[in-house]
Amino acid sequence: MAAPTPTPPNAFGLAQLQALADASPFIRHCQMEVIAADAAAGVVKMRMPLLPHLRRDASVAQFHGGPIASLIDTAGDFAVALAVGGGVPTINFRVDYLRPSSGDHLLAVATARRVGRTVGVADVDVFDDQGRLTAIGRATYSAQVG
Amino acid sequence: MAAPTPTPPNAFGLAQLQALADASPFIRHCQMEVIAADAAAGVVKMRMPLLPHLRRDASVAQFHGGPIASLIDTAGDFAVALAVGGGVPTINFRVDYLRPSSGDHLLAVATARRVGRTVGVADVDVFDDQGRLTAIGRATYSAQVG
Amino acid sequence: MAAPTPTPPNAFGLAQLQALADASPFIRHCQMEVIAADAAAGVVKMRMPLLPHLRRDASVAQFHGGPIASLIDTAGDFAVALAVGGGVPTINFRVDYLRPSSGDHLLAVATARRVGRTVGVADVDVFDDQGRLTAIGRATYSAQVG
Amino acid sequence: MAAPTPTPPNAFGLAQLQALADASPFIRHCQMEVIAADAAAGVVKMRMPLLPHLRRDASVAQFHGGPIASLIDTAGDFAVALAVGGGVPTINFRVDYLRPSSGDHLLAVATARRVGRTVGVADVDVFDDQGRLTAIGRATYSAQVG
Repeated sequence: MAAPTPTPPNAFGLAQLQALADASPFIRHCQMEVIAADAAAGVVKMRMPLLPHLRRDASVAQFHGGPIASLIDTAGDFAVALAVGGGVPTINFRVDYLRPSSGDHLLAVATARRVGRTVGVADVDVFDDQGRLTAIGRATYSAQVG
Repeated sequence: MAAPTPTPPNAFGLAQLQALADASPFIRHCQMEVIAADAAAGVVKMRMPLLPHLRRDASVAQFHGGPIASLIDTAGDFAVALAVGGGVPTINFRVDYLRPSSGDHLLAVATARRVGRTVGVADVDVFDDQGRLTAIGRATYSAQVG
Repeated sequence: MAAPTPTPPNAFGLAQLQALADASPFIRHCQMEVIAADAAAGVVKMRMPLLPHLRRDASVAQFHGGPIASLIDTAGDFAVALAVGGGVPTINFRVDYLRPSSGDHLLAVATARRVGRTVGVADVDVFDDQGRLTAIGRATYSAQVG
Repeated sequence: MAAPTPTPPNAFGLAQLQALADASPFIRHCQMEVIAADAAAGVVKMRMPLLPHLRRDASVAQFHGGPIASLIDTAGDFAVALAVGGGVPTINFRVDYLRPSSGDHLLAVATARRVGRTVGVADVDVFDDQGRLTAIGRATYSAQVG
């Protein structure tokens, strides 16, 4: 699915992140897609479609909070993974829901705020398909690839 | 699925919580089951099986962190819902992962710590099928049924 | 201490925020100073000097984490206060320490991410006197002036 | 200040925790006192008096949220310190304020929930002098003495 990336051989970039995502049954089940990975900026962008089984309510086109939290956890993980060269275990995270998350898909923009020897910290902003900020996350990961 | 509850007619208890769960495509998709609801103690217990699509990795019998966070959010919500008589919007929550969550199913024990006029706060402990504590959550909800 | 502000009479701005700070024995004891308040951007900036009683250790010029958390709580509160026209109760907050906070003073930049009818959410970045990001906070407040 | 402890020579217990507290100008300034340390249970109890400079408001006998957060951070740190044998750096923490914290002093009861190789996690309940739960904290520390 990921187009050939401009990263040199053996580099850890968009294609490697998408491969991590596709290797996880749950992430694949949510059809999360890595759409940008900028190692210099520490930013990863991911998209998730409003699949029927991700809805809060059968009658309303809104995401349940669980998949939103899952997208935040994953996108933040990948922002730290990009810095350390591999997937990392989540230590903890916080999610704040600001508005209902409606529309056709969600876009998560994850930014590594700090990656040290022990832990990495990422912020994640989630936008709906109209560009409205609907949720924000902050997560701490082990900085050891695991 | 829910057995007849000892609650009087019109009360909000285990059966009503399970009905809330079943009305949500995502929660139903995770097969979360309410197995206890004690309004006097402010405690709700929920169980979630290790379905194939909830796995972190196809080759290991472990839950992905996303469904664990979703279980925490839902169980905490229901502990507050039990106090206010209906489902409530999540304002924010924090999840700490303590150990890999493996085994056949997870058990979440949610306790309302405080339900005021504006918000309710719940703690959630998650145990694997061997009774080991694998994750803990703390969540704040609007105290207005919505 | 606050210079005359360009806000019209009765408006809630920098001078009113500083008055709130000065009315609180603890905040005054930390000598927190409001140095900018931009209602349109939802941003408040505050400064706190490294007083002897705010140190982590007598032999090192570093802030203890407690005053850093206090600065984050206060600056975030004021960013929401600016939007709603008065001080607001803190519901909860999270602090992540990224580096030791050393130097002569700290600068907190608080941004309101969302102020709704029930709650307001603010992000706070804390910088040392060299401009290094040392800590980040995220806080939820009641949106009712209290 | 700490009475002779029943711990054997060289053990890390109540007296060593109080010495850590007294070595920090900020903690000493808040007059935090370690009143119990049970290594087997992973529990540390600390007390903080309502000093004039810790008040939220000059006219009301209530603690400001900053000192409450500081007490939580410190008590949680000491619960992990008890397990690893020395003070540890805070990675992050969350505080939820449940009620105004009034009265003559606060009591913090910190419990280590999990101490692994990389991080330790502690829960802290804060009670006023009437035994009412007024705030709760959850914190993550490095498990390396630093």
